[in-house]
Amino acid sequence: MGRSPLAPEAFNCSAPDTGNMEVLERYGTEAQKQEWLQPLLEGRIRSCFAMTEPAVASSDATNISSTIRRDGDHYVINGRIWWTTGAPDRRCKIILFMGKTDPGHPDRHRQQSMILVPMDTSGVTLLRRLPVFGYDDAPNGTGELLFEDVRVPATNLLLGEGRGFEIAQGRLGPGRVHHCMRAIGQAERTLEKTCARVKTRVTFGKPIAEQTVTLERIAEARILIDQARLLVLKTASVMDVAGNRTARAEIAMIKVAVPNMLCRVVDMAIQAHGAAGVSDDFGLAKAYAEARALRIVDGPDEVHRNQIGRLELEKTSSA
Amino acid sequence: MGRSPLAPEAFNCSAPDTGNMEVLERYGTEAQKQEWLQPLLEGRIRSCFAMTEPAVASSDATNISSTIRRDGDHYVINGRIWWTTGAPDRRCKIILFMGKTDPGHPDRHRQQSMILVPMDTSGVTLLRRLPVFGYDDAPNGTGELLFEDVRVPATNLLLGEGRGFEIAQGRLGPGRVHHCMRAIGQAERTLEKTCARVKTRVTFGKPIAEQTVTLERIAEARILIDQARLLVLKTASVMDVAGNRTARAEIAMIKVAVPNMLCRVVDMAIQAHGAAGVSDDFGLAKAYAEARALRIVDGPDEVHRNQIGRLELEKTSSA
Amino acid sequence: MGRSPLAPEAFNCSAPDTGNMEVLERYGTEAQKQEWLQPLLEGRIRSCFAMTEPAVASSDATNISSTIRRDGDHYVINGRIWWTTGAPDRRCKIILFMGKTDPGHPDRHRQQSMILVPMDTSGVTLLRRLPVFGYDDAPNGTGELLFEDVRVPATNLLLGEGRGFEIAQGRLGPGRVHHCMRAIGQAERTLEKTCARVKTRVTFGKPIAEQTVTLERIAEARILIDQARLLVLKTASVMDVAGNRTARAEIAMIKVAVPNMLCRVVDMAIQAHGAAGVSDDFGLAKAYAEARALRIVDGPDEVHRNQIGRLELEKTSSA
Amino acid sequence: MGRSPLAPEAFNCSAPDTGNMEVLERYGTEAQKQEWLQPLLEGRIRSCFAMTEPAVASSDATNISSTIRRDGDHYVINGRIWWTTGAPDRRCKIILFMGKTDPGHPDRHRQQSMILVPMDTSGVTLLRRLPVFGYDDAPNGTGELLFEDVRVPATNLLLGEGRGFEIAQGRLGPGRVHHCMRAIGQAERTLEKTCARVKTRVTFGKPIAEQTVTLERIAEARILIDQARLLVLKTASVMDVAGNRTARAEIAMIKVAVPNMLCRVVDMAIQAHGAAGVSDDFGLAKAYAEARALRIVDGPDEVHRNQIGRLELEKTSSA
Repeated sequence: MGRSPLAPEAFNCSAPDTGNMEVLERYGTEAQKQEWLQPLLEGRIRSCFAMTEPAVASSDATNISSTIRRDGDHYVINGRIWWTTGAPDRRCKIILFMGKTDPGHPDRHRQQSMILVPMDTSGVTLLRRLPVFGYDDAPNGTGELLFEDVRVPATNLLLGEGRGFEIAQGRLGPGRVHHCMRAIGQAERTLEKTCARVKTRVTFGKPIAEQTVTLERIAEARILIDQARLLVLKTASVMDVAGNRTARAEIAMIKVAVPNMLCRVVDMAIQAHGAAGVSDDFGLAKAYAEARALRIVDGPDEVHRNQIGRLELEKTSSA
Repeated sequence: MGRSPLAPEAFNCSAPDTGNMEVLERYGTEAQKQEWLQPLLEGRIRSCFAMTEPAVASSDATNISSTIRRDGDHYVINGRIWWTTGAPDRRCKIILFMGKTDPGHPDRHRQQSMILVPMDTSGVTLLRRLPVFGYDDAPNGTGELLFEDVRVPATNLLLGEGRGFEIAQGRLGPGRVHHCMRAIGQAERTLEKTCARVKTRVTFGKPIAEQTVTLERIAEARILIDQARLLVLKTASVMDVAGNRTARAEIAMIKVAVPNMLCRVVDMAIQAHGAAGVSDDFGLAKAYAEARALRIVDGPDEVHRNQIGRLELEKTSSA
Repeated sequence: MGRSPLAPEAFNCSAPDTGNMEVLERYGTEAQKQEWLQPLLEGRIRSCFAMTEPAVASSDATNISSTIRRDGDHYVINGRIWWTTGAPDRRCKIILFMGKTDPGHPDRHRQQSMILVPMDTSGVTLLRRLPVFGYDDAPNGTGELLFEDVRVPATNLLLGEGRGFEIAQGRLGPGRVHHCMRAIGQAERTLEKTCARVKTRVTFGKPIAEQTVTLERIAEARILIDQARLLVLKTASVMDVAGNRTARAEIAMIKVAVPNMLCRVVDMAIQAHGAAGVSDDFGLAKAYAEARALRIVDGPDEVHRNQIGRLELEKTSSA
Repeated sequence: MGRSPLAPEAFNCSAPDTGNMEVLERYGTEAQKQEWLQPLLEGRIRSCFAMTEPAVASSDATNISSTIRRDGDHYVINGRIWWTTGAPDRRCKIILFMGKTDPGHPDRHRQQSMILVPMDTSGVTLLRRLPVFGYDDAPNGTGELLFEDVRVPATNLLLGEGRGFEIAQGRLGPGRVHHCMRAIGQAERTLEKTCARVKTRVTFGKPIAEQTVTLERIAEARILIDQARLLVLKTASVMDVAGNRTARAEIAMIKVAVPNMLCRVVDMAIQAHGAAGVSDDFGLAKAYAEARALRIVDGPDEVHRNQIGRLELEKTSSA
């Protein structure tokens, strides 16, 4: 366990459990907390979050095509979802599922709801593991799920019909900070490995560490990491002091800046390690795969940059 | 067969066979050609090339620590080699092995020799497959080999003692052009996939294809690909007309420019595909893994840039 | 004369005369050729091209707000134009002016016309020189012109009413190739200067030329230049063989690739020269100013990238 | 006055006065403070700092070839210096001059001394103004000075013979923070101008502000600025709390990060402004010229990156 450098599992502080637990703590009923939050906190079970669909661009939440249809005291769920991190894990017992209860609602952000689906409910099928680059991260990893006429009690709905988008938004802010904090740690370890490596390798009569191209890349990595860390710290501070909504520009900024920083730092490290860098011997290719995925997970860079740009433009208009 | 996008196997035109066949055609004796070149050309067997050592930075060939020691009518070979593409393939029957016959020779480029080692010789062990970004490419792929007191007839030596560096140099030029040509093809297919994808995905009410960021990236990809292709064509032409030595700046230039171009084009495609981009469904993560490895294989970018820079500086001094 | 590195004036091969002469040769009447083309070819006079307006984004030609109104046997011209290269030059005798004859025409590309305006016509005022990064290039340079009820004979109209956009398009293709060819030459001279400089400067006990960062940048410059040159040559060849319309993707590609290449090469040279790089002693700051302007002149990068992207997307749709 | 965006002059807080006043405050005698510091603080006079020589790469202080030779109660000064900011200003009355008192001293950092030279001393000649790109910033700006047998009292020496390098080092740290703080302000104003501009310009039926390429660049600018600002604030804090020496990695990091950030932000702004961007109408070309010079002033990026890289490598060795 705990092999994935971006997903430390001690104390269950890895994605998507951290975000899911926050949702249950904020919006769950007492019964839901008893049944799911408590064992999650204790690390006895794991959870997953089902929202990304292969058929549409899910970075626009209004594209969602999965359905949650009321039927008496139950909801009936249908949809095909992928990139559900943790779903293939045997310990995963509960799914937070996002779908549309009211696809015709005039407010496009009130069409969605979120509901709890126990993993062993009839109609839930794990279709396959999804590798990231060539890594399937078995026995954990991410999966593709099929929901066919899955029936759960109506009490499993979180917060109320039409509140799904709101919950997802509230969940994503802190989740992004968690991702970014793990990424800063990964970048630091990567730079350490690189420094250690370049001191021991000699080419053309001189350690690689003494080449100015090497010094330049180490310096760039250090500058990138320190700037990214400070932006994450500032973001966390604004969230604490002024709330997630006030911090939404900062949250979007770290979601873009930190994974891009990590991609560059790891890429530089791969190059400095030579052929060993693309192998599994130093964990760098794996780290790159995860860093690269982070530029897409929870919304691709492009979506966040658009939001940052719009918020910036609004500042000037009010001036 | 033929699944690896950079290594088409029809007509046996994939690395490292193309380069190895050229070596046998140029430097092999009639007997060697009969025994190894003919079946390689006919695609009945495969070959590998053993030169990169885990213990040293092999981009500097004078670092080589493997030994080829004369013992009567035989040579005795010892060393540990990795990144031997094709070695794990069952069809691989012959190894072109690089090692030092005369580690004390005052000319550091006359210390090495190249020798033919049949795969089934006693003392040759395949230690493991080496994955590239998680892909082990079984049943082909690249491997780590151990040579312990491997004994082959003295007639297996190619060209003569101390000629190994010379053969390797002669082999690498055309090999690099082959790599680059395959990479151009890969880039074209990647751009096609991207264009097809962005037309079908809609976010925020509009196909991704109509966003100016998408147009910008497609344009950049097209500009990068066309420039890279023209440089490869020019390089091949200089080699044909004036020989590999005259073309050494151009060969080094495409070795840097083309894999970097491919990395950028594939990375852009991954981003445009969203989560599908890092999966195996569109072959993009795999393509990236191979493109990234190409920036290290046959000498990392840094070694080639140094050479290009030096050749450029020489021009001015003669002015 | 001839000081501007991008605008050699021997044989009058500098912008905008080359493009203007091509327009006169293709669309001028015999009388117009006699009066203006002949003295231009002989270098006795100079010309300018007035199309860019300060009030609107002129990269979209349909934004043009200048007017050319028929009045009996004359046209009456009004407008404010800037970035008219060559206008402040005393030798400049003739203006090719673009404006709207029919602002209400349903085809937005038939609203514009082009007309010849002798520089000394009443109502034409040179408002000021426009510096580029502080360089006003006196006594040549670029200027801002005011046209107030400027009256010229109706025979001065080129090709016919509503043909202005068509002429401008035909003019711009070759003009872009000329710009790019001059830029390739500038890049080569810049790289030469850099190589010469780094050999003579010593820091921390070693010539800058021997630092791997220096070698890396020289190598990158050489790779960029050679790729750009090949793309320009290919573009010129497609234009010759298949015509400007067939070559429009290539023309747009070099318009983006070459000035960006030149900016990078000159920027690298500035850094390698130290403080001397931003001074006027080596011509590098001036070269940068011109290279940077080229990314905007004749349409900014963004407009060309959009066009290249759209042409690429069309390829796949027809597949 | 105060026209240069990076050199506000109110309260005399512009370079090089801020740094020079710090030197006088720390190392000046009471008499020196009375004569020079007091009028500088009151803004009645200006000062300059003479250390960069055209003949050698001054980023390596041991290259200095100017001489300060003891002769009885005087020192005699000879040398040719350029990039002396403020020297052409009529209000400039005092020069802080760096030269070698003991070129043969075995410790290469004890060969230099710093001395006060009144501007009107016989033998001091202002050779010329040095433009940065095309801007000479008259009546201020930077100049080239010739020192021919310039004789000043021995009491003008600061701190003692062989202490010049030490003073220069102590001076440069805070000076770099000042530069960076001004640059952050410049970047903010540049981004504001850009936001205002893109809202008012329409191309192809839509404000530039709504194009995703525009949003992307505004977002990147905001991310770059905020990260840079946080790094400057952290640096200033480390200097306050732990001293300049402890902060030397951070000082070097902002010296690289901030001017590069500013170059990118201004370059993006230029492109968004179209042809107006390279003119003087929005101050952007001027801002770029200053930002670009900052990548060289007080040591080029390369020197600082080498230092940052070395400090990083030291961390791992002590681990």
